[in-house]
Amino acid sequence: MPAAMYQISVPVFDRRLKAHAAILDKAAAHAEAKKIDPSAFMMDRLYPDMFPFWLQVQSACDHAKNSIARLTGVEMPIFDETAKTFDGLKARIARTLEFVNGANPAAFEGAEDRVITLTQSGRERQMTGMDYFQNSALPNFYFHLTTAYGILRHNGVEIGKRDFMGNPPV
Amino acid sequence: MPAAMYQISVPVFDRRLKAHAAILDKAAAHAEAKKIDPSAFMMDRLYPDMFPFWLQVQSACDHAKNSIARLTGVEMPIFDETAKTFDGLKARIARTLEFVNGANPAAFEGAEDRVITLTQSGRERQMTGMDYFQNSALPNFYFHLTTAYGILRHNGVEIGKRDFMGNPPV
Repeated sequence: MPAAMYQISVPVFDRRLKAHAAILDKAAAHAEAKKIDPSAFMMDRLYPDMFPFWLQVQSACDHAKNSIARLTGVEMPIFDETAKTFDGLKARIARTLEFVNGANPAAFEGAEDRVITLTQSGRERQMTGMDYFQNSALPNFYFHLTTAYGILRHNGVEIGKRDFMGNPPV
Repeated sequence: MPAAMYQISVPVFDRRLKAHAAILDKAAAHAEAKKIDPSAFMMDRLYPDMFPFWLQVQSACDHAKNSIARLTGVEMPIFDETAKTFDGLKARIARTLEFVNGANPAAFEGAEDRVITLTQSGRERQMTGMDYFQNSALPNFYFHLTTAYGILRHNGVEIGKRDFMGNPPV
Protein backbone atom coordinates (compact mmCIF):
# COMPACT_ATOMS: atom_id res chain seq x y z
CA MET A 1 0.00 0.00 0.00
CA PRO A 2 1.71 3.25 -1.09
CA ALA A 3 1.87 6.16 1.33
CA ALA A 4 -1.22 8.36 1.52
CA MET A 5 0.56 11.39 0.09
CA TYR A 6 1.67 9.33 -2.88
CA GLN A 7 -1.86 8.13 -3.55
CA ILE A 8 -3.36 11.61 -3.57
CA SER A 9 -0.70 13.18 -5.77
CA VAL A 10 1.09 11.02 -8.36
CA PRO A 11 -1.94 9.19 -9.85
CA VAL A 12 -3.94 12.43 -9.91
CA PHE A 13 -1.31 14.36 -11.80
CA ASP A 14 -0.76 11.42 -14.12
CA ARG A 15 -4.41 11.06 -15.06
CA ARG A 16 -5.18 14.75 -15.42
CA LEU A 17 -2.10 15.56 -17.45
CA LYS A 18 -2.61 12.61 -19.77
CA ALA A 19 -6.17 13.80 -20.30
CA HIS A 20 -4.82 17.24 -21.07
CA ALA A 21 -2.33 15.87 -23.59
CA ALA A 22 -5.28 14.27 -25.42
CA ILE A 23 -7.07 17.64 -25.32
CA LEU A 24 -4.03 19.27 -26.91
CA ASP A 25 -4.23 16.72 -29.74
CA LYS A 26 -7.84 17.67 -30.35
CA ALA A 27 -7.03 21.36 -30.26
CA ALA A 28 -4.16 20.91 -32.71
CA ALA A 29 -6.40 18.95 -35.08
CA HIS A 30 -9.07 21.65 -34.77
CA ALA A 31 -6.58 24.39 -35.60
CA GLU A 32 -5.35 22.46 -38.62
CA ALA A 33 -8.83 21.64 -39.91
CA LYS A 34 -10.00 25.24 -39.55
CA LYS A 35 -6.72 26.68 -40.80
CA ILE A 36 -6.25 28.63 -37.60
CA ASP A 37 -2.76 29.75 -36.62
CA PRO A 38 -2.01 27.74 -33.44
CA SER A 39 -0.53 30.84 -31.84
CA ALA A 40 -4.05 32.27 -31.71
CA PHE A 41 -4.76 29.61 -29.09
CA MET A 42 -1.37 29.79 -27.42
CA MET A 43 -1.57 33.49 -26.70
CA ASP A 44 -5.25 33.79 -25.82
CA ARG A 45 -6.31 34.69 -22.28
CA LEU A 46 -9.67 35.02 -20.55
CA TYR A 47 -8.71 38.55 -19.53
CA PRO A 48 -5.71 40.74 -20.41
CA ASP A 49 -3.97 40.32 -17.04
CA MET A 50 -4.39 36.57 -16.90
CA PHE A 51 -1.86 34.03 -18.13
CA PRO A 52 -2.06 33.07 -21.81
CA PHE A 53 -2.98 29.51 -22.69
CA TRP A 54 0.55 28.18 -23.03
CA LEU A 55 1.49 29.53 -19.61
CA GLN A 56 -1.62 28.06 -18.01
CA VAL A 57 -0.53 24.63 -19.22
CA GLN A 58 3.08 25.19 -18.18
CA SER A 59 1.97 26.39 -14.75
CA ALA A 60 -0.19 23.32 -14.19
CA CYS A 61 2.80 21.15 -15.08
CA ASP A 62 5.09 23.11 -12.79
CA HIS A 63 2.78 22.85 -9.80
CA ALA A 64 2.73 19.08 -10.33
CA LYS A 65 6.50 18.83 -10.71
CA ASN A 66 7.35 21.15 -7.84
CA SER A 67 4.93 19.59 -5.41
CA ILE A 68 6.26 16.10 -6.05
CA ALA A 69 9.79 17.39 -5.51
CA ARG A 70 8.83 19.16 -2.29
CA LEU A 71 6.84 16.25 -0.90
CA THR A 72 9.63 13.77 -1.55
CA GLY A 73 12.40 16.12 -0.45
CA VAL A 74 14.35 16.14 -3.69
CA GLU A 75 15.62 19.16 -5.56
CA MET A 76 13.07 20.75 -7.88
CA PRO A 77 14.16 20.18 -11.45
CA ILE A 78 14.20 23.36 -13.51
CA PHE A 79 12.70 22.97 -16.96
CA ASP A 80 13.23 25.56 -19.66
CA GLU A 81 10.29 27.59 -20.86
CA THR A 82 7.87 25.60 -22.98
CA ALA A 83 7.86 25.99 -26.76
CA LYS A 84 4.58 27.81 -27.42
CA THR A 85 3.16 25.15 -29.71
CA PHE A 86 0.86 22.21 -29.16
CA ASP A 87 3.84 19.90 -29.55
CA GLY A 88 5.86 21.99 -27.13
CA LEU A 89 3.15 21.75 -24.49
CA LYS A 90 2.81 18.01 -25.03
CA ALA A 91 6.54 17.67 -24.54
CA ARG A 92 6.27 19.66 -21.31
CA ILE A 93 3.55 17.34 -20.06
CA ALA A 94 5.58 14.27 -21.01
CA ARG A 95 8.66 15.58 -19.24
CA THR A 96 6.61 16.50 -16.18
CA LEU A 97 5.04 13.05 -16.05
CA GLU A 98 8.41 11.40 -16.40
CA PHE A 99 9.48 13.22 -13.24
CA VAL A 100 6.19 12.74 -11.39
CA ASN A 101 5.91 9.04 -12.19
CA GLY A 102 9.59 8.52 -11.51
CA ALA A 103 9.25 9.65 -7.91
CA ASN A 104 10.12 7.04 -5.31
CA PRO A 105 6.87 5.95 -3.63
CA ALA A 106 8.74 5.28 -0.37
CA ALA A 107 9.87 8.90 -0.25
CA PHE A 108 6.26 9.98 0.37
CA GLU A 109 6.23 8.31 3.80
CA GLY A 110 5.56 11.00 6.37
CA ALA A 111 5.35 13.69 3.68
CA GLU A 112 2.11 15.00 5.20
CA ASP A 113 4.09 16.24 8.20
CA ARG A 114 7.23 17.36 6.38
CA VAL A 115 7.84 21.09 6.78
CA ILE A 116 7.56 22.85 3.43
CA THR A 117 8.91 26.37 3.01
CA LEU A 118 7.43 28.56 0.29
CA THR A 119 8.85 31.93 -0.62
CA GLN A 120 6.23 34.33 -1.90
CA SER A 121 6.81 38.01 -2.53
CA GLY A 122 10.10 37.68 -0.68
CA ARG A 123 8.41 36.33 2.45
CA GLU A 124 8.96 32.80 3.69
CA ARG A 125 6.07 30.76 4.91
CA GLN A 126 6.23 27.33 6.43
CA MET A 127 3.52 24.71 6.42
CA THR A 128 3.09 20.97 6.60
CA GLY A 129 3.26 18.85 3.49
CA MET A 130 -0.46 18.14 3.74
CA ASP A 131 -1.36 21.81 4.12
CA TYR A 132 0.88 22.73 1.23
CA PHE A 133 -0.46 20.01 -1.04
CA GLN A 134 -4.13 20.57 -0.32
CA ASN A 135 -4.17 24.32 -0.07
CA SER A 136 -1.52 25.36 -2.54
CA ALA A 137 -0.28 22.67 -4.94
CA LEU A 138 -3.53 20.95 -5.82
CA PRO A 139 -5.79 24.01 -6.15
CA ASN A 140 -3.10 25.74 -8.21
CA PHE A 141 -2.76 22.68 -10.43
CA TYR A 142 -6.50 22.44 -11.04
CA PHE A 143 -6.81 26.20 -11.43
CA HIS A 144 -4.35 26.37 -14.31
CA LEU A 145 -5.49 23.14 -15.94
CA THR A 146 -9.14 24.17 -15.91
CA THR A 147 -8.37 27.66 -17.12
CA ALA A 148 -6.39 26.20 -20.03
CA TYR A 149 -9.40 24.04 -20.88
CA GLY A 150 -11.69 27.07 -20.59
CA ILE A 151 -9.58 29.07 -23.04
CA LEU A 152 -9.83 26.29 -25.64
CA ARG A 153 -13.59 25.96 -25.12
CA HIS A 154 -14.00 29.72 -25.34
CA ASN A 155 -12.25 29.54 -28.71
CA GLY A 156 -14.55 26.89 -30.05
CA VAL A 157 -12.42 23.74 -29.78
CA GLU A 158 -14.86 20.84 -29.71
CA ILE A 159 -14.02 19.24 -26.42
CA GLY A 160 -16.19 18.52 -23.43
CA LYS A 161 -15.90 17.75 -19.77
CA ARG A 162 -15.47 14.09 -20.67
CA ASP A 163 -12.14 15.08 -22.22
CA PHE A 164 -11.17 16.98 -19.10
CA MET A 165 -12.03 14.00 -16.92
CA GLY A 166 -10.01 11.66 -19.10
CA ASN A 167 -10.04 7.94 -19.55
CA PRO A 168 -11.33 5.71 -18.22
CA PRO A 169 -14.32 7.96 -17.52
CA VAL A 170 -15.69 8.11 -14.01
CA MET B 1 -6.25 11.92 13.81
CA PRO B 2 -9.24 12.03 11.44
CA ALA B 3 -9.52 9.42 8.70
CA ALA B 4 -7.55 10.09 5.53
CA MET B 5 -10.66 10.49 3.40
CA TYR B 6 -11.99 13.09 5.81
CA GLN B 7 -8.75 15.05 5.67
CA ILE B 8 -8.67 15.25 1.90
CA SER B 9 -12.30 16.21 1.46
CA VAL B 10 -14.03 18.23 4.20
CA PRO B 11 -11.31 20.86 4.86
CA VAL B 12 -10.73 21.26 1.12
CA PHE B 13 -14.37 21.92 0.31
CA ASP B 14 -14.65 24.19 3.33
CA ARG B 15 -11.71 26.35 2.38
CA ARG B 16 -12.45 26.58 -1.32
CA LEU B 17 -16.14 27.33 -0.91
CA LYS B 18 -15.50 29.97 1.72
CA ALA B 19 -13.02 31.59 -0.66
CA HIS B 20 -15.65 31.48 -3.36
CA ALA B 21 -18.24 33.11 -1.10
CA ALA B 22 -15.80 36.00 -0.62
CA ILE B 23 -15.38 36.18 -4.41
CA LEU B 24 -19.15 36.44 -4.78
CA ASP B 25 -19.12 39.40 -2.40
CA LYS B 26 -16.53 41.13 -4.56
CA ALA B 27 -18.48 40.38 -7.72
CA ALA B 28 -21.70 41.72 -6.20
CA ALA B 29 -19.92 44.90 -5.10
CA HIS B 30 -18.43 45.26 -8.58
CA ALA B 31 -21.85 44.88 -10.21
CA GLU B 32 -23.32 47.46 -7.89
CA ALA B 33 -20.49 49.97 -8.33
CA LYS B 34 -20.59 49.66 -12.12
CA LYS B 35 -24.39 49.55 -12.25
CA ILE B 36 -24.30 46.17 -14.00
CA ASP B 37 -27.37 43.95 -13.82
CA PRO B 38 -26.17 40.94 -11.76
CA SER B 39 -27.97 38.61 -14.16
CA ALA B 40 -25.36 39.55 -16.79
CA PHE B 41 -22.88 37.64 -14.63
CA MET B 42 -25.27 34.89 -13.62
CA MET B 43 -26.14 33.91 -17.17
CA ASP B 44 -22.74 34.32 -18.79
CA ARG B 45 -20.85 31.30 -20.13
CA LEU B 46 -17.44 30.83 -21.69
CA TYR B 47 -19.12 29.16 -24.67
CA PRO B 48 -22.77 28.73 -25.60
CA ASP B 49 -22.94 25.03 -24.70
CA MET B 50 -21.22 25.43 -21.34
CA PHE B 51 -23.00 25.96 -18.03
CA PRO B 52 -23.81 29.56 -17.10
CA PHE B 53 -22.10 31.07 -14.09
CA TRP B 54 -24.81 30.31 -11.56
CA LEU B 55 -24.86 26.64 -12.58
CA GLN B 56 -21.09 26.38 -12.39
CA VAL B 57 -21.28 27.49 -8.76
CA GLN B 58 -24.22 25.22 -8.00
CA SER B 59 -22.43 22.28 -9.64
CA ALA B 60 -19.30 22.83 -7.57
CA CYS B 61 -21.47 22.85 -4.44
CA ASP B 62 -23.29 19.71 -5.51
CA HIS B 63 -20.13 17.75 -6.18
CA ALA B 64 -18.97 18.66 -2.68
CA LYS B 65 -22.29 17.73 -1.06
CA ASN B 66 -22.79 14.53 -3.01
CA SER B 67 -19.28 13.26 -2.50
CA ILE B 68 -19.45 13.76 1.25
CA ALA B 69 -22.76 11.89 1.32
CA ARG B 70 -21.37 9.04 -0.79
CA LEU B 71 -18.14 8.74 1.16
CA THR B 72 -19.94 8.64 4.50
CA GLY B 73 -22.75 6.40 3.28
CA VAL B 74 -25.61 8.76 4.06
CA GLU B 75 -28.44 9.73 1.76
CA MET B 76 -27.61 12.60 -0.58
CA PRO B 77 -29.64 15.63 0.45
CA ILE B 78 -31.53 17.20 -2.42
CA PHE B 79 -31.34 20.97 -2.49
CA ASP B 80 -33.67 23.05 -4.64
CA GLU B 81 -32.24 24.97 -7.54
CA THR B 82 -30.24 28.00 -6.51
CA ALA B 83 -31.72 31.47 -6.76
CA LYS B 84 -29.75 33.04 -9.61
CA THR B 85 -28.43 35.94 -7.60
CA PHE B 86 -25.20 36.53 -5.69
CA ASP B 87 -27.12 36.11 -2.44
CA GLY B 88 -28.72 32.93 -3.76
CA LEU B 89 -25.34 31.44 -4.58
CA LYS B 90 -23.95 32.45 -1.21
CA ALA B 91 -26.88 30.73 0.45
CA ARG B 92 -26.18 27.60 -1.61
CA ILE B 93 -22.58 27.63 -0.47
CA ALA B 94 -23.62 28.13 3.16
CA ARG B 95 -26.10 25.27 3.00
CA THR B 96 -23.54 23.03 1.31
CA LEU B 97 -20.94 23.82 3.94
CA GLU B 98 -23.41 23.15 6.71
CA PHE B 99 -23.84 19.65 5.32
CA VAL B 100 -20.14 19.11 4.53
CA ASN B 101 -18.90 20.34 7.89
CA GLY B 102 -21.67 18.48 9.69
CA ALA B 103 -20.46 15.11 8.39
CA ASN B 104 -19.37 12.66 11.07
CA PRO B 105 -15.56 12.34 10.86
CA ALA B 106 -15.78 8.73 12.06
CA ALA B 107 -17.99 7.84 9.08
CA PHE B 108 -15.01 8.40 6.76
CA GLU B 109 -13.18 5.38 8.21
CA GLY B 110 -12.60 2.95 5.37
CA ALA B 111 -14.31 5.25 2.87
CA GLU B 112 -11.41 4.81 0.45
CA ASP B 113 -12.48 1.18 -0.09
CA ARG B 114 -16.24 1.68 0.05
CA VAL B 115 -17.91 0.72 -3.22
CA ILE B 116 -19.49 3.76 -4.86
CA THR B 117 -22.02 3.32 -7.64
CA LEU B 118 -22.47 6.15 -10.12
CA THR B 119 -25.20 6.16 -12.73
CA GLN B 120 -24.23 8.03 -15.86
CA SER B 121 -26.20 8.04 -19.07
CA GLY B 122 -28.29 5.19 -17.64
CA ARG B 123 -25.25 3.01 -17.08
CA GLU B 124 -24.06 1.99 -13.64
CA ARG B 125 -20.40 2.08 -12.82
CA GLN B 126 -18.81 0.96 -9.61
CA MET B 127 -15.56 2.17 -8.15
CA THR B 128 -13.83 2.54 -4.81
CA GLY B 129 -14.37 5.62 -2.68
CA MET B 130 -10.81 6.74 -3.37
CA ASP B 131 -11.15 6.31 -7.13
CA TYR B 132 -14.47 8.14 -7.09
CA PHE B 133 -13.18 11.00 -4.97
CA GLN B 134 -9.93 11.55 -6.82
CA ASN B 135 -11.11 10.93 -10.36
CA SER B 136 -14.66 12.21 -10.29
CA ALA B 137 -15.67 14.29 -7.27
CA LEU B 138 -12.57 16.43 -6.80
CA PRO B 139 -11.79 17.20 -10.47
CA ASN B 140 -15.45 18.01 -11.04
CA PHE B 141 -15.48 20.27 -8.01
CA TYR B 142 -12.40 22.16 -9.12
CA PHE B 143 -13.57 22.24 -12.71
CA HIS B 144 -16.80 24.06 -11.89
CA LEU B 145 -15.29 26.31 -9.26
CA THR B 146 -12.46 27.43 -11.52
CA THR B 147 -14.77 27.94 -14.48
CA ALA B 148 -17.03 30.11 -12.32
CA TYR B 149 -13.98 32.17 -11.36
CA GLY B 150 -12.95 32.38 -15.03
CA ILE B 151 -16.35 33.74 -16.05
CA LEU B 152 -16.10 36.52 -13.46
CA ARG B 153 -12.55 37.37 -14.53
CA HIS B 154 -13.57 37.34 -18.17
CA ASN B 155 -16.24 39.88 -17.27
CA GLY B 156 -13.81 42.21 -15.58
CA VAL B 157 -14.46 41.55 -11.90
CA GLU B 158 -11.33 42.64 -10.07
CA ILE B 159 -10.31 39.45 -8.37
CA GLY B 160 -7.10 37.49 -8.57
CA LYS B 161 -5.77 34.04 -7.86
CA ARG B 162 -5.22 35.10 -4.28
CA ASP B 163 -8.99 35.31 -3.95
CA PHE B 164 -9.37 31.87 -5.46
CA MET B 165 -6.82 30.44 -3.05
CA GLY B 166 -8.54 32.02 -0.07
CA ASN B 167 -7.36 32.83 3.40
CA PRO B 168 -4.98 32.28 4.95
CA PRO B 169 -2.94 32.45 1.75
CA VAL B 170 -0.53 29.63 0.99
